[in-house]
Amino acid sequence: MEVAPKSPDPVAPGAAPGPSHIRLTSHASGHGALPIHWAAASAAERGPVVGTTSKRSHRNVIGTHSGSYSVYRALAVASGALSPHHKADLTNTSPTDVIGPYPQWSEPGRIVSMDPWGARIAEVFAAELAAGYDIRPTIAVTKAHVILPEVIEALQSGRLKADGKFLTANGAAMVTKAAIEPVWYLPEVARRFGCTEADLRRVLFEETGGMYPELVTRSDLEVFLPPIGGQTIYIFGNPRDLANPAVELTARVHDECNGSDVFGSDICTCRPYLTHAIEECIQGAQRGGVGLVAYSRKEGRALGEVTKFLVYNARKRQLGGDTADQYFARTECVAGVQDMRFQELMPDTLNWLGITKIHRLVSMSNMKFDAITKAGIEIVERVNLPDALIPDDARVEMDAKMAAGYFTPGAVPDADELKKAKGRQLDT
Amino acid sequence: MEVAPKSPDPVAPGAAPGPSHIRLTSHASGHGALPIHWAAASAAERGPVVGTTSKRSHRNVIGTHSGSYSVYRALAVASGALSPHHKADLTNTSPTDVIGPYPQWSEPGRIVSMDPWGARIAEVFAAELAAGYDIRPTIAVTKAHVILPEVIEALQSGRLKADGKFLTANGAAMVTKAAIEPVWYLPEVARRFGCTEADLRRVLFEETGGMYPELVTRSDLEVFLPPIGGQTIYIFGNPRDLANPAVELTARVHDECNGSDVFGSDICTCRPYLTHAIEECIQGAQRGGVGLVAYSRKEGRALGEVTKFLVYNARKRQLGGDTADQYFARTECVAGVQDMRFQELMPDTLNWLGITKIHRLVSMSNMKFDAITKAGIEIVERVNLPDALIPDDARVEMDAKMAAGYFTPGAVPDADELKKAKGRQLDT
Repeated sequence: MEVAPKSPDPVAPGAAPGPSHIRLTSHASGHGALPIHWAAASAAERGPVVGTTSKRSHRNVIGTHSGSYSVYRALAVASGALSPHHKADLTNTSPTDVIGPYPQWSEPGRIVSMDPWGARIAEVFAAELAAGYDIRPTIAVTKAHVILPEVIEALQSGRLKADGKFLTANGAAMVTKAAIEPVWYLPEVARRFGCTEADLRRVLFEETGGMYPELVTRSDLEVFLPPIGGQTIYIFGNPRDLANPAVELTARVHDECNGSDVFGSDICTCRPYLTHAIEECIQGAQRGGVGLVAYSRKEGRALGEVTKFLVYNARKRQLGGDTADQYFARTECVAGVQDMRFQELMPDTLNWLGITKIHRLVSMSNMKFDAITKAGIEIVERVNLPDALIPDDARVEMDAKMAAGYFTPGAVPDADELKKAKGRQLDT
Repeated sequence: MEVAPKSPDPVAPGAAPGPSHIRLTSHASGHGALPIHWAAASAAERGPVVGTTSKRSHRNVIGTHSGSYSVYRALAVASGALSPHHKADLTNTSPTDVIGPYPQWSEPGRIVSMDPWGARIAEVFAAELAAGYDIRPTIAVTKAHVILPEVIEALQSGRLKADGKFLTANGAAMVTKAAIEPVWYLPEVARRFGCTEADLRRVLFEETGGMYPELVTRSDLEVFLPPIGGQTIYIFGNPRDLANPAVELTARVHDECNGSDVFGSDICTCRPYLTHAIEECIQGAQRGGVGLVAYSRKEGRALGEVTKFLVYNARKRQLGGDTADQYFARTECVAGVQDMRFQELMPDTLNWLGITKIHRLVSMSNMKFDAITKAGIEIVERVNLPDALIPDDARVEMDAKMAAGYFTPGAVPDADELKKAKGRQLDT
């Protein structure tokens, strides 16, 4: 059990004599801001990510914590409900399971969009916390029992069996889960997207309508906490086994789709694929392996739900009906691109977990496959979504994706097949 | 079927002769920016919300569209996948159902955090679009079939009956749904939170680590598109009936909880309450009423999921175990507040839909009840979550909330009851 730092409001560094590894040298642009040496071999050399809003001179990043929820924090302060000087009491909040460190954490370019030390700040930056730095976790690790009706159905129909360890008789799967906020090291994020850091900074500023001018004025700040959703990972089995290539790993990387994941809309296969993956993960853990679901907050292909619904209407109303051969074109007309999810940053979480080999990837996406293998992780086998789990109205999407390169063990639909209207009209 | 504007890249206003209601007068600070008269009686008088990034002089707001997904749009531009000059082709995207206009749309202070005209921009701002203004929908309305396993179970057990109109035999509920992005009129948002507009602007800037300096430098821009998630509404029955107080309305306003809504974590009652509400909405529609679920993107009480998981650990590990009497205290230690959701803005969507009376509110939250009634909407009856749907581990949360003022038709737990450890330990 760790004890929360109880120091009063930020002590000026230099005033409080700290342990020797605290760098009290003033940063080029700050007064007491600690330097960040991304991908350094140890936490002490790397240094903490400080995104506090209560002591500006300590900040060594652009942006702040909790992503876009900082806007709600502002409302809390504006309404008088929250003191702007509140410091988190981190008593008892430390991870239930220690993740890493793994060699990937300090290999240049391997992890560029999250802070591998983000879960363990109370431990590895205890001295800096004691010296008055307001350091926040960017990752939290806990345990949960998750009960999905599809898992209960699988138990009832005999596809899954309860063992009391990974799955209880009432359908609860035992998991370790982690919430991860994005922490971007801009020089390497730019490299992933094949542009210069200067271009990335300028475009991030311009295309958001002028969010964070420090992106262009403070090139000395190389780390950005973007106000976007992060990832949540669910581990079925022992988290340590993820890093052991000898243990069978079943994994799905899933992108958020509120309409299907929560509400079960039948126009896509998102929730069916997610619950199928969870079933596969439980089975994998039960036969001595480990399972992983990584859930990314990228609603509607990272276009947002308004754009997604606009595209639905355009698909359903177009001349000739909802056909697979026009599936990507309709998104591109509205959004300018077919997809904005960019899987380039997704594998960072897998590297954080120490994964080097995925035995069974429960995904048909060639973009996810390519990104993971490019990140140095081996994929042995791909598991497609069983046909019986594809809702009728989702056939359009599935055909279009298979024709565009999605993995399928069966036949790829030809041009004639893609022209057939398979989606419902709006008024039916 | 509307036709998309096909004008070339933004035409300088003044160059293209537009219809008379386009105000070509240069804005105090812009060159061609159209004024916004919030809550004006008609769309023409109100004027369009222009958050484009391709022609800066046309902008009449702070921020941009698609909330935080603008960061992904920036990545698309940085990587060369998207032209920064792309204009959305809105062909066939118009709403499947016309919502409003309702008197509430132009009553001062009634709707301050969304654009009531946001779904109909292609129709009501056709002239401005033709004149080269890049106006985007902030709302999209479509139709869907939603299939939830809990609804299928209710069909099988006889609690629900298929009628082929609201609910099919295979468990698909027919809905109209709308995605809504936040559009904040800052003077009235400040009023809702009891602070001055100047304070709200300053705090929004400071507590986000310096996001959008225009908040403090451009007091002439009164509308802000914050990079936060919005709402999605699901309507069971005829959307027009929502505004008719004679038609029985069953409604739930639900705040996102990914861990329960998607994954079925048993530490809270979020998904059980959501699916219970959907069952109530279907039954309501079947007996001649109408149902509504409004889903707000406010993960973990708008604290984000990292903070939520930290709090889970602190609750489970505290001396004495996970008890209701420490439930709110643990959140406050970590986050500084018990809750950051602020229901103050939530009722705007209800007013947008023309709602004046909710016959059955499927919620026990006193904060939601207070906010809705304060917004001028009558609530006849509150529907609590049946005891059988409360997971064992969620008993702590439920007891704590009932003791704090949540609605319950039964007994409120007393001090002794609240001290009993009812939550699981982390290692079980």
